[in-house]
Amino acid sequence: MRISELSERTGVPVATLKYYLRERLLHAGTPLGATRADYDESHVERVRLVRTLIDVGRLTIDRVGEVVRALEDPPDSRHDLLGVAHRVLRNPGEANGASDPLIDALGWRIAPNSVARGQLAAALERARRDGLEVSPETFATFAEAAELIAESDVRAELGEAPAAEALQYVILGNVLTDGVVIALRRLAQEHVSAQRFASPG
Amino acid sequence: MRISELSERTGVPVATLKYYLRERLLHAGTPLGATRADYDESHVERVRLVRTLIDVGRLTIDRVGEVVRALEDPPDSRHDLLGVAHRVLRNPGEANGASDPLIDALGWRIAPNSVARGQLAAALERARRDGLEVSPETFATFAEAAELIAESDVRAELGEAPAAEALQYVILGNVLTDGVVIALRRLAQEHVSAQRFASPG
Repeated sequence: MRISELSERTGVPVATLKYYLRERLLHAGTPLGATRADYDESHVERVRLVRTLIDVGRLTIDRVGEVVRALEDPPDSRHDLLGVAHRVLRNPGEANGASDPLIDALGWRIAPNSVARGQLAAALERARRDGLEVSPETFATFAEAAELIAESDVRAELGEAPAAEALQYVILGNVLTDGVVIALRRLAQEHVSAQRFASPG
Repeated sequence: MRISELSERTGVPVATLKYYLRERLLHAGTPLGATRADYDESHVERVRLVRTLIDVGRLTIDRVGEVVRALEDPPDSRHDLLGVAHRVLRNPGEANGASDPLIDALGWRIAPNSVARGQLAAALERARRDGLEVSPETFATFAEAAELIAESDVRAELGEAPAAEALQYVILGNVLTDGVVIALRRLAQEHVSAQRFASPG
């Protein structure tokens, strides 16, 4: 298809698609002469991924570029692949491998320079600074819940999928279902509160 | 203390504090003449709450106003109080009480016009639109984890605390610990992945 049709299919303006091509977020089409090229379903899929990372994941263009390069040359090990996913999803200003007594007490198998460790230490520090100390009991409950979710996220099947596909799944899975987890937390609060405080019926 | 000291204590410029006073996000101080007033610790605490709601919770000024009015005149019932917290934390453009087959299958006690229901339906719809269908098995796992977290959020002690304090706790608890839950999810992914895919040691 021509770039105009790729634009129609994805809802992304032609000028923006050309920008993605220049920034190498989108791979080149098959040349059809000096100024035209042919695009296929792989381009439609890539444009949708880029839009999701920007619109839902709030990733910068640079960060999307990191995702694309990782998809084009994914690491061999499944565990390194998760590390790549976490690196592109990290928030600005968080120190890799930061420590926190609550994290240290978990006993989980976490790399010393882990990005996820820095993200969690920063979130705990933000809460404390704004006057909310997460108690060890609350943290242990959150950790138990997070492990349940992670078991589902890091399924055995991921070990079988092609590396690029597994990487895309892990990144999109985090970007798109963080909102589901948070919304479920609110809905569960309503359910628990109804059982505890509301009149029956 | 004078407004200049309130500014120093909170790190919020005097002009911004005056704006908060005009918008009634901050209660008036005790008048010390025509142009001066005396502020106390309740003002320091309120300014910190307003900043957290804006900076971390990404609430608009109007939404912060809703929180402040609810704190000044909280509902009697603990369950209604949670409803107020969910209303101020809602995202724009979500339909209250929206339905989704996955939510309907939960069997939870949820009001027909629930804000949390709308938030969850919107999150599921966004994921689907971007190509990620949450399977019933995954959703059931997420729901189990969310219920664990919510049991900790909606503790029995909340039923004993003064209404305004309980409301502030529930709102701040959600705003400040959503990030902790999401970061714990990533850290747990690393732990689960290390156990499953990484070489020992």
